[in-house]
Amino acid sequence: MEKIKVGFLGCGNIGCGVYKLLETYGKEMERNEGVAFQVEKILVRSLNKKRNWDVPAALFTDNAQDVLDNDQIDIVMEFMGGEQPAASYMIRALEKGKTVVTANKMALASHWDEIVSAAREHGAGLYYEASVCGAIPIIRAMNESLQANRISSVMGIINGTTNYILTRMSREGAAYEDVLADAQRLGLAEPDPTADVEGYDAAYKLSILSTLAFHRHVPVEKIYREGITGVTALDVACGREFGLTLKLLAVAKQEDGKIQARVHPTFVPDSHPLAGVSDAFNAVYVDGHACGEMMFYGRGAGDMPTASALVSDLVKAARAKRHQLPAVGDEPCVMADDWSCVHFVRMRAKDEPGVLALVSGKFAEHGVSISSMVQKGDRDERGYVQLIFLTHKASERAVRCALSQMDGSRVSSGSVIRVEGF
Amino acid sequence: MEKIKVGFLGCGNIGCGVYKLLETYGKEMERNEGVAFQVEKILVRSLNKKRNWDVPAALFTDNAQDVLDNDQIDIVMEFMGGEQPAASYMIRALEKGKTVVTANKMALASHWDEIVSAAREHGAGLYYEASVCGAIPIIRAMNESLQANRISSVMGIINGTTNYILTRMSREGAAYEDVLADAQRLGLAEPDPTADVEGYDAAYKLSILSTLAFHRHVPVEKIYREGITGVTALDVACGREFGLTLKLLAVAKQEDGKIQARVHPTFVPDSHPLAGVSDAFNAVYVDGHACGEMMFYGRGAGDMPTASALVSDLVKAARAKRHQLPAVGDEPCVMADDWSCVHFVRMRAKDEPGVLALVSGKFAEHGVSISSMVQKGDRDERGYVQLIFLTHKASERAVRCALSQMDGSRVSSGSVIRVEGF
Repeated sequence: MEKIKVGFLGCGNIGCGVYKLLETYGKEMERNEGVAFQVEKILVRSLNKKRNWDVPAALFTDNAQDVLDNDQIDIVMEFMGGEQPAASYMIRALEKGKTVVTANKMALASHWDEIVSAAREHGAGLYYEASVCGAIPIIRAMNESLQANRISSVMGIINGTTNYILTRMSREGAAYEDVLADAQRLGLAEPDPTADVEGYDAAYKLSILSTLAFHRHVPVEKIYREGITGVTALDVACGREFGLTLKLLAVAKQEDGKIQARVHPTFVPDSHPLAGVSDAFNAVYVDGHACGEMMFYGRGAGDMPTASALVSDLVKAARAKRHQLPAVGDEPCVMADDWSCVHFVRMRAKDEPGVLALVSGKFAEHGVSISSMVQKGDRDERGYVQLIFLTHKASERAVRCALSQMDGSRVSSGSVIRVEGF
Repeated sequence: MEKIKVGFLGCGNIGCGVYKLLETYGKEMERNEGVAFQVEKILVRSLNKKRNWDVPAALFTDNAQDVLDNDQIDIVMEFMGGEQPAASYMIRALEKGKTVVTANKMALASHWDEIVSAAREHGAGLYYEASVCGAIPIIRAMNESLQANRISSVMGIINGTTNYILTRMSREGAAYEDVLADAQRLGLAEPDPTADVEGYDAAYKLSILSTLAFHRHVPVEKIYREGITGVTALDVACGREFGLTLKLLAVAKQEDGKIQARVHPTFVPDSHPLAGVSDAFNAVYVDGHACGEMMFYGRGAGDMPTASALVSDLVKAARAKRHQLPAVGDEPCVMADDWSCVHFVRMRAKDEPGVLALVSGKFAEHGVSISSMVQKGDRDERGYVQLIFLTHKASERAVRCALSQMDGSRVSSGSVIRVEGF
């Protein structure tokens, strides 16, 4: 069987995982799929670094040209990470007519137009299943299983680190800082956790997912983003009392021709399938007009799950006679600047007559209807209590506006957390 | 754009759903996918029957030849249901070189070899995403996303009717017969519910799923099958006390080169993702050596979810330059005749000294180790109590053998229910 020649850009844990899969499972894939691969050249930063799988040193090069300009190589697999030089390398490979398989959400989301255009112009393939949620075949689902659907919403737990942190905060009542420190010790969070905890990682993935869902390019810089660093153990606990579980959710919806794309801490009802997605697991929930509600659950990161997705793309690329590129129209993407959802509002209020009337009056004035309210705990030494409201579906702008007009000596707003999945 | 000509076999609710999707969403699909379809002919039993979507009467025929032998038609979509004549029709279409898209698990599972061979010999395509779990793209996942994985197990809630019944029994403590009658009234169970409640429907689907998972044909007649008609409210309630939820699970595992494929009532721990799959929803849980644990959740039945899967296959078939047939080896499928799992055992036992020693002694004699035991309720008028055991992972044969040797005046076994997902 003729072997398809593959070049790697990068050989960290994921690259080693791909090499390992091809080496240990290549024969079975050859028999099952009728395709065989040979790794021809591997671009690495350091030729002598110790790898966690035995890759022949003869394959390594520190010169990108040996992969990108190598006429022997049909398919380039990119898992070097980061925006540059990964994006330029992918574009160069595509311009040479090579098919690119990538796990790099950041480079892909940040240079979407250039990368997709390069693929289109040069008739090259572009495969990126591994760039969103590791092993979970959500890109395939969007592109190849839900074509008959007008998708109204996509909601996902698409960052494992923040889900691990929030799961432990919820289970143990622990504080954010303590769990983060623990996650860093365990290697589940980076020494600089910004990309995860501030929602950047999720925003890159959501840009790709929502672009495919709505057939419009949703640029990452248009995505509303709010991380989990301000989440308090108190809010998590209060949510539990209302039957709500806190998640960092990536939400994309299409309503009245406008697209909402947002990443923020979100409560979901305990009965919602996303509420049960714990620890470092990922899941994407999709609602389409024909298929109804669906959820895809699995390991969104990790060397072997990501390698599993990369190799599935490799097989797909090798078998394709004509490459399928993202079906995205040219129409500009009109983003919503406000959206409606249920809101969880926690505030400190003076425990005296008239305060509840003030609060509920202000909400009513802005058309925000209250679904339930509880007063939590005893009054503190200054005479304040915690009030927690759950609104009916209401415009976010209206909620914020009402709250800003309440702030004062008798009421101060603590937290506003969006609720999805009702 | 050239239109691909499609023939329908059947035009019940699902067929009308497909027609509706093509009519109302065809333009968008044309733009997004670059393919267009035209329905050419529709085989129906009755030309004059009222349909739930306005399909032009000129398309109807009651002569199968008008579809099967029609040279205009490229793709035949089958949703007439039942084993025959559906299977023969599909084979005839494939022999004519036409691609077949089917939702018919029964015909496909029962005539797997003939149908797949006909496709292979005549270079025709065979697409069957809709035959297993409606809109859930589990066939695509098996065939096109998990190629790099040695799959160790597939466990699914793949029958909506039984899941609805068990969910209500579990929530309400209701008896099987009462909930079944209710489901029949609501149209969620057939007047003759045998195919669902006895596990036949699930067994057909499991045959297809396990064949794809293990690359060996797992014939439906080799699948162990046990329905939910014997499930009692008492067992459901006892399970809950152990943190277990009862499901009709379809289980396929590969261990030591042998395949287990079985459909039976099964407890799963409440913390397992399958435990939260309620009402008529379906889910399939897959474990692969690279991807790890994954779950695919959604509407496993219903006209539009099934139509969504059928149309996704139609698009796939239209875009394919070379059709991909199931990668199944010729080696015979060696089935396991015993398997190990945790067992839930409920028995009636005389409440007197020595009985527990008898029971635990017999278990020990057969190598069955007990993980926990509770005595439930007060002694009845004849001096008996309910004892409930949870075993460690143990051979099913050993458990049955131990129990058969205990049966007698002082102990009588009530229920043995397998537990998966620990």
